[in-house]
Amino acid sequence: MLQSHLTFGTRKEAPRDEVAKNASLLVRAGYINKLHAGVYTFLPLGLRTFKKIEQIIREKVNAVGAQEVFMPSLQPKENWEKTGRWDTMTDLFKVKDASDREYALGPTHEEVVVPLVQQFATSYKQLPLSVYQFQTKFRMELRAKSGILRVREFTMKDMYSYHTSEEDLSNFYERMKLVYADIFDTVGIGHVTKMTFASGGSFSKYSHEFQAITPAGEDTIYVCQKCNVAVNKEIIADQSTCPECGNDKLVEEKAIEVGNIFDLKTKFSKAFDYTVKDGNGVQIPVLMGCYGIGVGRLLGTVVEVLADEKGLVWPANIAPFDAHIIVLGKDETLVRRAKELEVHLGQHHKEVLIDDRDVSAGEKFADADLIGIPVRIVISEKTENQGVYEVKNRSTGTVEMIPAEKIASVW
Amino acid sequence: MLQSHLTFGTRKEAPRDEVAKNASLLVRAGYINKLHAGVYTFLPLGLRTFKKIEQIIREKVNAVGAQEVFMPSLQPKENWEKTGRWDTMTDLFKVKDASDREYALGPTHEEVVVPLVQQFATSYKQLPLSVYQFQTKFRMELRAKSGILRVREFTMKDMYSYHTSEEDLSNFYERMKLVYADIFDTVGIGHVTKMTFASGGSFSKYSHEFQAITPAGEDTIYVCQKCNVAVNKEIIADQSTCPECGNDKLVEEKAIEVGNIFDLKTKFSKAFDYTVKDGNGVQIPVLMGCYGIGVGRLLGTVVEVLADEKGLVWPANIAPFDAHIIVLGKDETLVRRAKELEVHLGQHHKEVLIDDRDVSAGEKFADADLIGIPVRIVISEKTENQGVYEVKNRSTGTVEMIPAEKIASVW
Repeated sequence: MLQSHLTFGTRKEAPRDEVAKNASLLVRAGYINKLHAGVYTFLPLGLRTFKKIEQIIREKVNAVGAQEVFMPSLQPKENWEKTGRWDTMTDLFKVKDASDREYALGPTHEEVVVPLVQQFATSYKQLPLSVYQFQTKFRMELRAKSGILRVREFTMKDMYSYHTSEEDLSNFYERMKLVYADIFDTVGIGHVTKMTFASGGSFSKYSHEFQAITPAGEDTIYVCQKCNVAVNKEIIADQSTCPECGNDKLVEEKAIEVGNIFDLKTKFSKAFDYTVKDGNGVQIPVLMGCYGIGVGRLLGTVVEVLADEKGLVWPANIAPFDAHIIVLGKDETLVRRAKELEVHLGQHHKEVLIDDRDVSAGEKFADADLIGIPVRIVISEKTENQGVYEVKNRSTGTVEMIPAEKIASVW
Repeated sequence: MLQSHLTFGTRKEAPRDEVAKNASLLVRAGYINKLHAGVYTFLPLGLRTFKKIEQIIREKVNAVGAQEVFMPSLQPKENWEKTGRWDTMTDLFKVKDASDREYALGPTHEEVVVPLVQQFATSYKQLPLSVYQFQTKFRMELRAKSGILRVREFTMKDMYSYHTSEEDLSNFYERMKLVYADIFDTVGIGHVTKMTFASGGSFSKYSHEFQAITPAGEDTIYVCQKCNVAVNKEIIADQSTCPECGNDKLVEEKAIEVGNIFDLKTKFSKAFDYTVKDGNGVQIPVLMGCYGIGVGRLLGTVVEVLADEKGLVWPANIAPFDAHIIVLGKDETLVRRAKELEVHLGQHHKEVLIDDRDVSAGEKFADADLIGIPVRIVISEKTENQGVYEVKNRSTGTVEMIPAEKIASVW
C-alpha cells in the first residue's frame, strides 16, 4: 500500500488530551482517533493490528473446540433481573425504547449466553462445550484516563464453557490457562505476563488474571520469584505466600490485566435454572467457566510494554504491515522498484507499506520509527547502484545491507 | 467439522413467534436465535455465512480504494445537534451516563465520520477518498416483524466518500453503482436485484436503492421492462416513466432494499463546516456520497429469494460449508472415510460439515436440505463398495455418482 494514499497519517505533535503513552503514541502514529472520553475510532493501521490480534485469539480458542457466535448488545432487563445485576452493576448503561421497555447495553454476556445454550444443550451428552464471540461491550467508566486500556466501549473476546462436573470444569480451566499464556506469547508480551491469582468471588476460592508488568499498569501484583506466578492485591491481603509453591518472596510490580478467567460454578446457570439430564434422566446442575480478553486493551498493553522513545514497536505477528519500504529521492523509477518489491514480497505473503511521500528523508525515518513496522527497507539511488536494500530491524535497531535477491530471507 | 459437535443444531418445528420465512428457516436450521423482538444472535452456521458476505463486500470496496476503519457506537449528542438530527430522527436510541451526559447509539455514522476525516484531509490534494466500516447500528424499530430484514441492532457496511467537485462525486457514485451490482451478483441475488431510483431528499434529485424482488418485500418498486432499472413509490408518484430510458412500461413488484447509495452533496460537510484548501489556498466545500449495505438483511434476503419448501439454499460463495458429507450407517470406518475426505477436500480449499450423528437417514437428509449446503455427499457401505460418492446439488436437486478420485472436480 502507498503511504501517500493513507488518509489517516502521522502527527508531529503528541495529542494534548492524552496522558497515557499508549493513546498518545497510537493517536500520533495514526492508529486510533479519540471521539470523546474513553471512546476511540480505530483507523486503518490500528484496525489491521486489531484484526491480527483478534485472529490469533480466534485460532487459539477454536483449537480447543470453542464455537464462535455473535450475541446482541441490546439485552432485556428481565435477564439482568434474574441474575440480580440490573441494580448492582454500577457501570451498566441502560437504554429505553419508545414503549418504555428497558435494556442493558451489554457489558458482558452471561445474561444472553446462559439462556441461549440452555435452549440447545439439554443432555449431559452435549457437554462439555464452549462458545465465544468478539463483541462490543459498553461500560460506564467514570474516569477514562488510561487511553485504550480503560474505555467505555470496547471489543472483547468473551468465552463461556459448560460442564457437568467440577473435575471437567477444572480440567478445561487448566487448559485455558495454557491457551491464554500461548495467546500472550504469540502477540509478543509473554515475557512480562504473569498468571495471577485473584479473588474467586463468593463462589470459588480463586479466579485468575493475566497481568502484564509495566509501569503504566493500574493494578499492583506480587510476583513469586520462584514459580513465576503472581497474586493480586486482594489475595496478598489474606495470604503473603505464593498459592502455587508456598514461597514467601513476592515482589511488588505495576501491571495491566490483559485477560481473566473465572470459575463461575453454578452462579449463572442457577439464575436461569439451567440443568441438564444425566445418564439416569435426572436433572443435574450445569457448571460454567468464563474467559475474557479485551482486544483493544491487549493492543494498548503491547504498546506500553514494547514502544520506545521513538514510537511504536510491533512484534511481527501483529504488525499492521510486515515491511515499511522507504523510497529516498524523487526518481520515479525508485517508486516503481518499491512496487516491484511489494509484488515480490507479496508472493512470500508479506504485506508492505511504501513511503512514496514527497517529504524529507528525516521525516520519513522518524515516521517509520513512530509507526513501528518491524522491518524497514530503504530504496535509494545508492542501494539501487549496489544491488542491495538497506534493512533495519525496528526492535533491535540493527541495520544491514541485504542483496536484493535475498530480501525475502529477512523474515 | 463434525455435526455431532455442533451445539446449535436444527429444530423439527418452525418457531411459533416468527412470521417471516427468513427468520423461520434460519432459526429452524440453527443459523440464528431470537433474543427478543428485532434482536438476534448469530449462531456458528449463521456467522460463517455472515462473515463470507462481509468479506465479499470488503474485497469489492477495497478494490475502489476505500479504507476500512471502526467507529464507535456511543456518539456525542453535540455532533447530532450540529446536523439537526438529535431531535428529528425518531428511531434514535439515546443513552445517558452517570453525569447525565447524553449520547446517541449510532444508527448511522455521518456524525462521526465527517469530523474524523475533517481532522486529516485538509487539502484538495488528499481528495477524493473514501472510508468504510462494518459496525453495529441501533435503530428503535417499532414493529420488528420481518425476521432479520428489519431489526433493532444490526451490522452495516457504511461507506462515505469525499470529493472536491460534483463531477468527481458523480464519477465515483456511478462506479459504486457497478460495485454494488457486482456485490449482489457475487452473493447470488444479482438476477432479481434492480437498481432503483429513489428520492434524493432535499439536496439531490435522486438517490439509488438496490431492490431485490421477492414477495416478502416490504417495498413496492416499478421495474422498467426495457432497461432493467426500477423506480420506487416516491418516484412513481411524480413521474410514471423510467428516468433512465423514458419507457412507460413499468411493472409493479414487491422488493427488499438490500443497499442504498446517496449523493449527500454538502449536507453533512456544511453541518461541520468542513472545507478543504483548493490549489489557490481558497477554502472550498467538500462534497460527499454515502453507501450502505446491511449484512444481516442481505443474508435474510438471500434466504427469501432462494430458499425452497425444504429449507435454505445457499449460493456457493456464501454457504457456511462447501460440502455436507452424510455418513449412512453405524460402521466406524465410514466416519473415518468421511474425515479422510474432509482432509482431501481441505487440500482443495473446500470446507465440509460431516453428519456423523446417530439418527436416521431420513432425518439426516431432511436436515441437509434444511441447512442448505450446496453439495451433499453421501458415504455408505454401498458407495464404498462401488468406489463412488453420491453427490447431490442442493439447488438443482440433481444426483450423480462420482468416482471417489474425481470428487474435487465437482466444484
